[in-house]
Amino acid sequence: MNDSQRDDPLAGPRGRIDAIDARILALLAERAELLAEVVATKQREGLPIFVPEREAAKVAAFRSAAVEKGLDPDWAEDFLRMVMGASRARQSTGAFPRAGRSRTILFVGGRGRMGALYAGVFARSGHTVRCLDEGDWDRVDELCAGCDAAVVTVPIRATEAVIARLAPHLGADTLLLDFTSRKSAPLAAMLDAHPGPVVGLHPLHGSDVQNLSKQLMIVCPGRQPEAAAWLGEQFRLWGMRLAEMPAARHDEGMHLVQGLRHFLALLHGSFLMNQDARPQQMLDLSSPIYRAELMMTGRIFAQNPELYADIVFADDGRRAVLLEFLAHHERLAELVRDDDKAGFVAEFERVRAFFGEFAEQALTESNYLIHRLADRFAD
Amino acid sequence: MNDSQRDDPLAGPRGRIDAIDARILALLAERAELLAEVVATKQREGLPIFVPEREAAKVAAFRSAAVEKGLDPDWAEDFLRMVMGASRARQSTGAFPRAGRSRTILFVGGRGRMGALYAGVFARSGHTVRCLDEGDWDRVDELCAGCDAAVVTVPIRATEAVIARLAPHLGADTLLLDFTSRKSAPLAAMLDAHPGPVVGLHPLHGSDVQNLSKQLMIVCPGRQPEAAAWLGEQFRLWGMRLAEMPAARHDEGMHLVQGLRHFLALLHGSFLMNQDARPQQMLDLSSPIYRAELMMTGRIFAQNPELYADIVFADDGRRAVLLEFLAHHERLAELVRDDDKAGFVAEFERVRAFFGEFAEQALTESNYLIHRLADRFAD
Repeated sequence: MNDSQRDDPLAGPRGRIDAIDARILALLAERAELLAEVVATKQREGLPIFVPEREAAKVAAFRSAAVEKGLDPDWAEDFLRMVMGASRARQSTGAFPRAGRSRTILFVGGRGRMGALYAGVFARSGHTVRCLDEGDWDRVDELCAGCDAAVVTVPIRATEAVIARLAPHLGADTLLLDFTSRKSAPLAAMLDAHPGPVVGLHPLHGSDVQNLSKQLMIVCPGRQPEAAAWLGEQFRLWGMRLAEMPAARHDEGMHLVQGLRHFLALLHGSFLMNQDARPQQMLDLSSPIYRAELMMTGRIFAQNPELYADIVFADDGRRAVLLEFLAHHERLAELVRDDDKAGFVAEFERVRAFFGEFAEQALTESNYLIHRLADRFAD
Repeated sequence: MNDSQRDDPLAGPRGRIDAIDARILALLAERAELLAEVVATKQREGLPIFVPEREAAKVAAFRSAAVEKGLDPDWAEDFLRMVMGASRARQSTGAFPRAGRSRTILFVGGRGRMGALYAGVFARSGHTVRCLDEGDWDRVDELCAGCDAAVVTVPIRATEAVIARLAPHLGADTLLLDFTSRKSAPLAAMLDAHPGPVVGLHPLHGSDVQNLSKQLMIVCPGRQPEAAAWLGEQFRLWGMRLAEMPAARHDEGMHLVQGLRHFLALLHGSFLMNQDARPQQMLDLSSPIYRAELMMTGRIFAQNPELYADIVFADDGRRAVLLEFLAHHERLAELVRDDDKAGFVAEFERVRAFFGEFAEQALTESNYLIHRLADRFAD
């Protein structure tokens, strides 16, 4: 025991806590090495990266073990999922398993961020990847020759023109795909321009993810779905979740998911500016939940305005939904103008009935987020 | 090696991973016991629960150790903060350190959830706590006698009447406090009704927190601030962050933080209903960021509509801000109506300049949230 320990009654137990933390860190490093073995085996044997049943069984066992040791099982689950999340991230540094034989895939717009992400993942799964970017059209026939699939991943406004330009150069059996965040018009353009197999795709995640495990891919079938079976299997081997739906259902949903959200973020940020409410000062007044809200709005302004404008102004249907949203706001604002608290409560009760059990799930999930945010950033 | 291990090339390394996870769990349980020792010592010696400098030093050391072991330092920090967050939660199960001598504190409305939370924490810090609820007014003199402080924690609409009713029964030296989410009117009512020391407070957190460590308390000085010095010290010993500001600044900020947020949540939920967009179906179309947004809206509807109505309709000033928000929406919707993408981009650039460096911070924090949400719930 040294002098400072004699003076400080906390030094002893704190030193032992630090020693435990060091041992946990060493175990985590060892775990990471074992995991590299697992991943190498998966890659060799063509086994999926993410197996929901294995993860669920693992979580259940860990919760029981936590209860036996007197630890909170919810906390233990959070902990394990965080470790497993990092494990999945680490799995992205090596190779990925491949579905079936090696294919040749052409990325049209492969230097964009989403194209580059998928081109990298296909390549690391043992497929051959080619890129066709703006300067490469003089080599289009050479690049298309022998391709199993071609993925159009260019900005929304260019998609249909690029499809029309590309399709005549594709083999009749080549699977034609696109990654656009709208699906009806690009799918129609692909079906029109290409006689072979066609599928519309929309990866519902950012291009900054560490790998594709647990990420969601929307799949809108076009023509000859059997010709795309290997692709679905490949997505599942990467651990992706697939949601198949008609293009029209996707597009209507996206008006609300992407169009409304991004318009609301601009509206919120721009109103804070209008009120001269500096975000940094607002943090002094923010509970964790408002902090989360401010961060969700603020993140937009670190990104590309053209990209957001393309999303908000995607088409007439989306603009019509945004104008309906204004009309809806005008109706609800009547309650505020008339100081009609009872009307507010009645509307609240109607929405509560419509949301049903989802509201409880939302409370649980958002509480989890809020507590993580408070742990991580509120200091 | 048993049969299934011979068949399954993953069984070996997976078994070793499971063994490591069991050892980590045992270390976490041991860590929790050591922490109980630390907490008991803190309580005995009147030392603060949360010391930002100690936590910062601990995080820096852990990051360095992670880098040495080949682990991602950001991930290691997330991990440690999660463990420390759980540690703080566990510290809430025992007693708390006390600032100075034991005081007697009267909670007026102590059966409400926020009152009950604070009454419990004061009691477990060795103070004497009394409660005055609706049925107790016949004993008001008895309950007020000898109190060092009285905290009014009743619904907004009752606050001023309760202050007027309570104040004549307080000793001239009793510190009068309130917990209302507005500050100007209650503070004026307290200064008017009570000649002694007065402070307005607003705890900026939910009543479901496990303890008060890292939570934010807004402090609006009223009269004789020196008489409340022990209280500030007590808040800090519990690990709270204090933000002192004039009541008017608090109230203006709250129009945007609480009023606008809750109105927007109703507007968003009610528009989804208007579009017949079931939240559970929307999840099929949700990237992690929209999932987070949907959860932040949905949580509202698992809660009390009267409470939200009180917040949204707090006063004329708040309603005026909400009507300005409508006018602002009408202006921005012109861009949508006119298909004016360039105007949208120009407004975006103005907001970006106003947000400044905050946008990058928001991107970092919200990415953290989104990745945690994907780890935890997207399966």
